Amino acid sequence: MGPRPLRQALLREARMDKLRAYVIGATGLVGQRYVQLLAEHPWFELVGVAASERSAGKRYGDINWVLETPLPEKAAELKIDKLDVDSVPKVDVVFSALPSEVAAKVEPELARRGYLVVSNSSNMRLEPDIPLVIPEVNPRDLELLREQRKRGWSGGIIKKPNCSTTILDLPLKPILDEFGIVRLHVVTMQAVSGAGFSGVASMAILDNLIPYIRGEEEKIVNETKKIFRRDLEIYATTTRVPVVDGHTEVVYVDTERDFDIEGVLELLAKFRGLPQELGLPTAPEAPIIVTKNPDRPQPRLDRMAGNGMSVVVGRARKLGARKLAFVVLGHNTIRGAAGNAVLATELLIKLGLY
Amino acid sequence: MGPRPLRQALLREARMDKLRAYVIGATGLVGQRYVQLLAEHPWFELVGVAASERSAGKRYGDINWVLETPLPEKAAELKIDKLDVDSVPKVDVVFSALPSEVAAKVEPELARRGYLVVSNSSNMRLEPDIPLVIPEVNPRDLELLREQRKRGWSGGIIKKPNCSTTILDLPLKPILDEFGIVRLHVVTMQAVSGAGFSGVASMAILDNLIPYIRGEEEKIVNETKKIFRRDLEIYATTTRVPVVDGHTEVVYVDTERDFDIEGVLELLAKFRGLPQELGLPTAPEAPIIVTKNPDRPQPRLDRMAGNGMSVVVGRARKLGARKLAFVVLGHNTIRGAAGNAVLATELLIKLGLY
Amino acid sequence: MGPRPLRQALLREARMDKLRAYVIGATGLVGQRYVQLLAEHPWFELVGVAASERSAGKRYGDINWVLETPLPEKAAELKIDKLDVDSVPKVDVVFSALPSEVAAKVEPELARRGYLVVSNSSNMRLEPDIPLVIPEVNPRDLELLREQRKRGWSGGIIKKPNCSTTILDLPLKPILDEFGIVRLHVVTMQAVSGAGFSGVASMAILDNLIPYIRGEEEKIVNETKKIFRRDLEIYATTTRVPVVDGHTEVVYVDTERDFDIEGVLELLAKFRGLPQELGLPTAPEAPIIVTKNPDRPQPRLDRMAGNGMSVVVGRARKLGARKLAFVVLGHNTIRGAAGNAVLATELLIKLGLY
Amino acid sequence: MGPRPLRQALLREARMDKLRAYVIGATGLVGQRYVQLLAEHPWFELVGVAASERSAGKRYGDINWVLETPLPEKAAELKIDKLDVDSVPKVDVVFSALPSEVAAKVEPELARRGYLVVSNSSNMRLEPDIPLVIPEVNPRDLELLREQRKRGWSGGIIKKPNCSTTILDLPLKPILDEFGIVRLHVVTMQAVSGAGFSGVASMAILDNLIPYIRGEEEKIVNETKKIFRRDLEIYATTTRVPVVDGHTEVVYVDTERDFDIEGVLELLAKFRGLPQELGLPTAPEAPIIVTKNPDRPQPRLDRMAGNGMSVVVGRARKLGARKLAFVVLGHNTIRGAAGNAVLATELLIKLGLY
Repeated sequence: MGPRPLRQALLREARMDKLRAYVIGATGLVGQRYVQLLAEHPWFELVGVAASERSAGKRYGDINWVLETPLPEKAAELKIDKLDVDSVPKVDVVFSALPSEVAAKVEPELARRGYLVVSNSSNMRLEPDIPLVIPEVNPRDLELLREQRKRGWSGGIIKKPNCSTTILDLPLKPILDEFGIVRLHVVTMQAVSGAGFSGVASMAILDNLIPYIRGEEEKIVNETKKIFRRDLEIYATTTRVPVVDGHTEVVYVDTERDFDIEGVLELLAKFRGLPQELGLPTAPEAPIIVTKNPDRPQPRLDRMAGNGMSVVVGRARKLGARKLAFVVLGHNTIRGAAGNAVLATELLIKLGLY
Repeated sequence: MGPRPLRQALLREARMDKLRAYVIGATGLVGQRYVQLLAEHPWFELVGVAASERSAGKRYGDINWVLETPLPEKAAELKIDKLDVDSVPKVDVVFSALPSEVAAKVEPELARRGYLVVSNSSNMRLEPDIPLVIPEVNPRDLELLREQRKRGWSGGIIKKPNCSTTILDLPLKPILDEFGIVRLHVVTMQAVSGAGFSGVASMAILDNLIPYIRGEEEKIVNETKKIFRRDLEIYATTTRVPVVDGHTEVVYVDTERDFDIEGVLELLAKFRGLPQELGLPTAPEAPIIVTKNPDRPQPRLDRMAGNGMSVVVGRARKLGARKLAFVVLGHNTIRGAAGNAVLATELLIKLGLY
Repeated sequence: MGPRPLRQALLREARMDKLRAYVIGATGLVGQRYVQLLAEHPWFELVGVAASERSAGKRYGDINWVLETPLPEKAAELKIDKLDVDSVPKVDVVFSALPSEVAAKVEPELARRGYLVVSNSSNMRLEPDIPLVIPEVNPRDLELLREQRKRGWSGGIIKKPNCSTTILDLPLKPILDEFGIVRLHVVTMQAVSGAGFSGVASMAILDNLIPYIRGEEEKIVNETKKIFRRDLEIYATTTRVPVVDGHTEVVYVDTERDFDIEGVLELLAKFRGLPQELGLPTAPEAPIIVTKNPDRPQPRLDRMAGNGMSVVVGRARKLGARKLAFVVLGHNTIRGAAGNAVLATELLIKLGLY
Repeated sequence: MGPRPLRQALLREARMDKLRAYVIGATGLVGQRYVQLLAEHPWFELVGVAASERSAGKRYGDINWVLETPLPEKAAELKIDKLDVDSVPKVDVVFSALPSEVAAKVEPELARRGYLVVSNSSNMRLEPDIPLVIPEVNPRDLELLREQRKRGWSGGIIKKPNCSTTILDLPLKPILDEFGIVRLHVVTMQAVSGAGFSGVASMAILDNLIPYIRGEEEKIVNETKKIFRRDLEIYATTTRVPVVDGHTEVVYVDTERDFDIEGVLELLAKFRGLPQELGLPTAPEAPIIVTKNPDRPQPRLDRMAGNGMSVVVGRARKLGARKLAFVVLGHNTIRGAAGNAVLATELLIKLGLY
């Protein structure tokens, strides 16, 4: 699959060649995270970046880099291509951080032309043959890629879920497997970076919060159902708070079977997925970190746990029979976006699922 | 009851005399709100203020006034008394904003000596003969004052509930009456002023939130049960966010009987209580304001609704049969504290319940 | 002058008629301040509002009102006109809060057609026949209006200065008059509202500041020189800080003649201008409030001094012979914008300068 | 000097032994930075930590760690000693982050008893025989240690300057050497971490700033004069802004000799000091980083430049003959505190100045 088939790519990996990666939508917040993660990645070589007309032609080193770590030197000298399906170079993976309305046009066309597209955009996430993957939760959904052949695509598309969905579903996975889940009440407190660099005006959020994020509640509900392949009863309210990075979610779970709280804590802390078993480069040692400090997790102090790839669960308590409450926090542009997408790609490669 | 019986006080009211009010714990945030509300109050005359040793002897005008409106001129010239039960002057009402551990000693002693104490502190709130009053919700609980005679008190104590409880219970009242309530899931996002001026360090909350407030969840659960005299099933998680004033609460209600959402909105918007019927000075025109703007309520823009005495409900939606969700916001140091206490006192006086 | 000459207007004032006011650019932050100030103004009646195509046709009550006090009821029912010089109604004053590039076209055309335009926009401010007025500082510059007849205008334009300029020049006025000024070093810390509602992204300013505001330093330098009609030596650095409203400025003044600090404090505190003498409705009792509390002025606590029309000076100290330092704070969208413009208009009317 | 003479220590270094380091005041913000920097340091082994009674006896891993990177594993198992001059173990260096009033008693006593104390506290900084060192600026002042023998100390004390002083003096050093400095006007905008974890209440700084930091202006003036051994004319105003880490300073320099701005930029960018020449472990590649982006430096994006050891200079401009303006930003608890102290110690060791 893809202009440079991944099988060959794996062979090249064996020969220590790197896979060629290309980032489209490379100047936005998630695009910058992709560049940051790929620039030093042991398996990928970032060979190019594309963005809209406004940035095309610039040196990547001259964009308005807004991450707190320096722009990677390797990426600085790349010239930004104007995004155009006709001029994407022959690469092994295209990482997409396009706005959904652009992605809806560009990504299927790239898949049709043989590219493997790993996408952050929300379009198509719910289509049945599109893998919507949290590598520790539903790794086998990557096999859906094969179904996409029926679309006449020689390439394919994999999606990472919505940031809040990913952060929520990680701790739900072992709970679902062990105790069953009947019902969820969720309230999120989401960082402004989730809306992109200019998405939330400072006048809107200083000394303030906004009790609504358009489309976000539906994503949590529908994507979680798809990921767990279950018609869970989920109630979600999503809010925006004056935090730069890190989404916090308060979760009430009605379980099918009763539990004791120490058992839940141990279950969460010991949870490991396929990425951990396979020792993938971007996999955190523990996907879920458990804290008993009642004041934690906190976005500023915990969002970089596991280099931004772990979620941190705190305040876990049993509120009654089969009634669990906890707070989970994760980095929305790393585990919630670019990091999850890179990890899913690593898994795809390692599993030879292409 | 009290050194200057309120009956007489009411008579004086008829003669246009003002009731003599005294504030203890007058230098803290809630104490300042009491002073602000009482300085211009049509029924009360603020005759004195007391605080701890640290401030005693100062002019009130020389304290670190931290409200956004100027310190009232009438209060500026008051000399701050050192708090001492032996030297509280003969007044009609003592408003208390003492820390709970101090209140636990001082308030009962004042009640024993004949003072009417209207208190913001959390001690004693759950004792059966202590009125815990939101004037629009459970006005008749003020009659519990009489029960306190059995303690041998010639005065008495009335309490205002926890700030988050008050803000939550206002919209619950008409819902409970009309549709019944089985179960509540609540998540609060509370302003830093709720912890007092120095309660939350800036290092703890800038670009951050804290998923826990000690003791707060129990207060919401237990006080709500007392106020509604019902053993409701309530699950609460309380968090602190970087907002100066205004607590926001996300509420999921399982009702006993089904509803349509427009009916709920109308019910809330039209809700009026005894304070509105009686035209009490501090009563807002509408205790509950309903907004259909999905981005509201917001703390910075909505906390001063009804001069800080209304709560604002938004995002009301029906999520299934007998499943209601909404967001409610109120000013934590006005409706949630001093304003509610002053309103309760007005009601007490108007009803002649003493 | 103007379609409904102000002379007649004044006569109407004598008859208690109100002057008819119209706000263009009425939906932005400064436009909202104009509406707020005019809705309850004793001399003006707000008869209409205009905005860009995006808002045209809406009820004014349906815009995204972002001030912390409720949208005035009187204004809520106004229908928003599409801004068009051909359809501005016959009014006594047009208050303009247009973006400069739009203002540059619209305002002179309105003046040509006979309207009195009182403008917040930065275009034309330095032109010699355009009054750039802080009413307490250079009231007589309003007489420049007459010079505009040479442009063939039957109406005219008056401008309020840049917000930081206004806040700076108020305390400089009595110092200049009394001690002379040789040199100024200024550093501003400006609120995000100065850039309009969407001007500063939250990602740009949370846990952060920006050491630059485009064009602002030149405005402070050039406008101050024009206002004082003096070639002062001024060095300015303008920065943006995470504050909603209220610009703070640190000022070092090299004076011509030596001073003692108590004298300066008294001079500032006693300063009154023509608006105070004439008792204009929007004039604060004291245009300059002096605090000796070293922790003040602070934006959140002091910006509403004098209803947002006073500036607050603190930290005044003598650092050497003829070397004065102080901090001044003012509300950037009230004294720094709409309030100053309304006050200038009141003065114009009262002085009969048209 | 010291219980385990540093000469021997150096020998041990040659043998790859590490120097034994001890941190007093280890639980505060600067103490935590010391622990962070020393835990992985190639030359030092952190053998113990001490704090006040409140923390004594705890595992270091159980304190309220508030840095954004995890508590170092090596430090987690240390038991916190109660601070007591009689029980400080035999170590090569004691790093002190004590409050000044405690430091004033403890540090001289430790020096008397033979310990080398490297201190963050402000006491004694201006005493003539106490080195007050920015390693790139005045490295030779470390030789003052020898003068301390006259006090009868067998150990000694070195101090790092005030955080704002250090950040200011780094760019001033090459300017002073090349163009001479006559006069400085400085305005700082300082992070809340500069006051310690609980030093600034959130109520004091959310949507706000404070135009005063007690004692800070005198420190900048007096310490800068001592460091440069020159009676410079310095005017400083220090303010607190809602930023977690990173002090920003606006600086106007009147130089002795004229300059062109490109020359200044190059001078700053190329500046290297003894730590760079000697390749000390904590020395950043460039102590001063120059940016031409007018929006920079910004605290959130630039404070970690050079791992927090570089300062970033932006907005450099020539405002007239011999009049330079710029903005400088540095990490207040790394370069401004613990990092500078560790670097000074490295230099001391490398130079054999003991």
